[in-house]
Amino acid sequence: MKLNDLNPQTWTLARRAAKMNPSVIREILKVTDKPGIISFAGGLPSPETFPVDAFAEACARVLRDDGQAALQYAASEGHTPLREWVAHHLPWPVDPSQVLITSGSQQGLDLVAKVLIDSGSRVLVESPTYLGALQAFMPMEPAFEGMAGDAEGVDPDDLRRRAPGARLAYLLPSFQNPTGRTMSESRRTAVVAAAAATGLPIVEDNPYGELWFHTPPPPPLAARHPEGCIYLGSFSKVLAPGLRLGFLIAPRPLYPKLLQAKQAADLHTPGFNQRLVSFLLEGDFLQRHVPAIRALYRARCSTMLAALQREMAGLGVQWNAPAGGMFLWLRLPSGMDATALLPRAVARGVAFVPGAPFHADRPDARTLRLSFVTATPEQIDRGIAALADAVREHRPALA
Amino acid sequence: MKLNDLNPQTWTLARRAAKMNPSVIREILKVTDKPGIISFAGGLPSPETFPVDAFAEACARVLRDDGQAALQYAASEGHTPLREWVAHHLPWPVDPSQVLITSGSQQGLDLVAKVLIDSGSRVLVESPTYLGALQAFMPMEPAFEGMAGDAEGVDPDDLRRRAPGARLAYLLPSFQNPTGRTMSESRRTAVVAAAAATGLPIVEDNPYGELWFHTPPPPPLAARHPEGCIYLGSFSKVLAPGLRLGFLIAPRPLYPKLLQAKQAADLHTPGFNQRLVSFLLEGDFLQRHVPAIRALYRARCSTMLAALQREMAGLGVQWNAPAGGMFLWLRLPSGMDATALLPRAVARGVAFVPGAPFHADRPDARTLRLSFVTATPEQIDRGIAALADAVREHRPALA
Repeated sequence: MKLNDLNPQTWTLARRAAKMNPSVIREILKVTDKPGIISFAGGLPSPETFPVDAFAEACARVLRDDGQAALQYAASEGHTPLREWVAHHLPWPVDPSQVLITSGSQQGLDLVAKVLIDSGSRVLVESPTYLGALQAFMPMEPAFEGMAGDAEGVDPDDLRRRAPGARLAYLLPSFQNPTGRTMSESRRTAVVAAAAATGLPIVEDNPYGELWFHTPPPPPLAARHPEGCIYLGSFSKVLAPGLRLGFLIAPRPLYPKLLQAKQAADLHTPGFNQRLVSFLLEGDFLQRHVPAIRALYRARCSTMLAALQREMAGLGVQWNAPAGGMFLWLRLPSGMDATALLPRAVARGVAFVPGAPFHADRPDARTLRLSFVTATPEQIDRGIAALADAVREHRPALA
Repeated sequence: MKLNDLNPQTWTLARRAAKMNPSVIREILKVTDKPGIISFAGGLPSPETFPVDAFAEACARVLRDDGQAALQYAASEGHTPLREWVAHHLPWPVDPSQVLITSGSQQGLDLVAKVLIDSGSRVLVESPTYLGALQAFMPMEPAFEGMAGDAEGVDPDDLRRRAPGARLAYLLPSFQNPTGRTMSESRRTAVVAAAAATGLPIVEDNPYGELWFHTPPPPPLAARHPEGCIYLGSFSKVLAPGLRLGFLIAPRPLYPKLLQAKQAADLHTPGFNQRLVSFLLEGDFLQRHVPAIRALYRARCSTMLAALQREMAGLGVQWNAPAGGMFLWLRLPSGMDATALLPRAVARGVAFVPGAPFHADRPDARTLRLSFVTATPEQIDRGIAALADAVREHRPALA
């Protein structure tokens, strides 16, 4: 693939670059991010939960007590106290030497792809799955395969059938993005058994696990089968995404290669940011802070579910009731298409993300994702009413 | 390549993972980073130059004025005021839309590799060259070729000869890491002419350009041939590396692919860090701060050159006198080997980095790198004396 400017300079692109495309969601957000639009389209946490004052205190303390070290180059593995905190707060035995601090869990996906995916490697994913994982893996040119599944998670029999020769399965078991679904306890047991029996590595992504509404989700897959899982975690949803802080837990034999990929990628995650978060964590800040996020998101989710119940009655629209996280998943009646619905919804002042791009294969054009965390209750009520009007307007054309 | 743990779990690694190795320098630093050792081995800026108080003020202001936005997800391109500042402070016409903020300039190298390098692509490099660039490019499996050169920089005739079919030339023209050498004005003209004539893309890395001692280096290659160059810059050496903030300037046709690679790699560089630096830059902080770094590094370099002159007399050791940056380059007499010298030097309390790993091909075993910026003048005097003793001890064995 060659790119030509107006001048004679020619740039020959790597083959993989042809497969790298702008994020569909990003393009949608450009259209929907207009003044006056109520947006359920974003994937952002609610900024009212960001502990701005606590960060201000942490900045002052870190720079006063440890300023030069915080601003110097640092170890690629991450800040030792932060690695220790992560290791000690996971619900299975993890040694701090297995913790790699990453620039958001998105970077964990990039590192995993570099270390585990060759061109043409078969990579099993949920369908739909987190779009950012598809984008992170894509430069290494995998062959994605969507696994069958239901409201409890992926189908362990389908995973077992597809496992031979596959390089890894990427799973987001708790409050998944985009569907909000959570893998049940029995399903986790079955999926781990199938992966262990076939030797299929699991990459488990868990950015939302702390955002439960009433009870915590079942323990992670990695807790049941640590030697067969790479586990990705994040501080983006429990503290703030703008610091770009995540981590991965790797089985010992894999850690050195992931570390080398990390070092080559950006040397290390900002030591200043790691110390800020470490300072908050050691003060038990999370124990006081996360319950407030849970309460806010639980209330917003209830508001949206009530609005759907009220506004969508009789329209043949289906949706789920997530037990945590930031998203719910909607399915339009047979014959409708969420991408075609979007401009009508935007015209009525409400935005969402169509579900098709989240599918690695066989997109379900009737699906769409709604975020319930950034809009106010009043906006949720108005936005869902407008969405129902758009569905109503779109439907008669089909009759 | 397969990795086996004690348990039956098998991880099949990507082919590229076999080529990813621990940094040789990192391994050396583990040996040399002991209490009481005077280290000229590191590549770190002097922490006494870090503007800790100014950062404390910036943190307070950013969190007070713009806290929620600073802690939220942000655009992959970077913070607009920072992109504008970068565009307006480069010595050739750059539009802010061509600026991509990166997580250190190291990440710029990773993105360039993903977008431009296929397995087997010929990549031309200086010999020696920045080791981190070799590491960043390696996962994309290029075939490196070292170009001929001298004290003025790479040989433009060799570049022209090797250009056909090569994917890019990676060049660090000002105060190079590891040699400290600077490409002369006439050499820059000739190199750019050769690259333009052959259509060979240049990736220009300029982290040290602001650290001149008496006069600024000649203008960048990108200023002479913007449509044929990707330019990488950094705030690590003029402010602080611990924030991990760099940038790249891309020709318009290339920008979208680099942006997609950035988004897939880590979504965006921390918005909080970008705002901190933006706050300092808009207050003209750099104009007051950078001259102090220059003065410090100039004085330390003079101290080291004087110590070398005094201590190495008659030993047949050669070195250069850099016009800026952080490093100087030493060549031992014929028959000596810097890697073999290292343990003797460490036994005498001084450390350096052997030059061999910086060469993509044909390593010169007699070379070594000395950083003059982190040791005090007294340590420099003692360290160079100890190094001369080690050379003296090592030499008779050859006679």
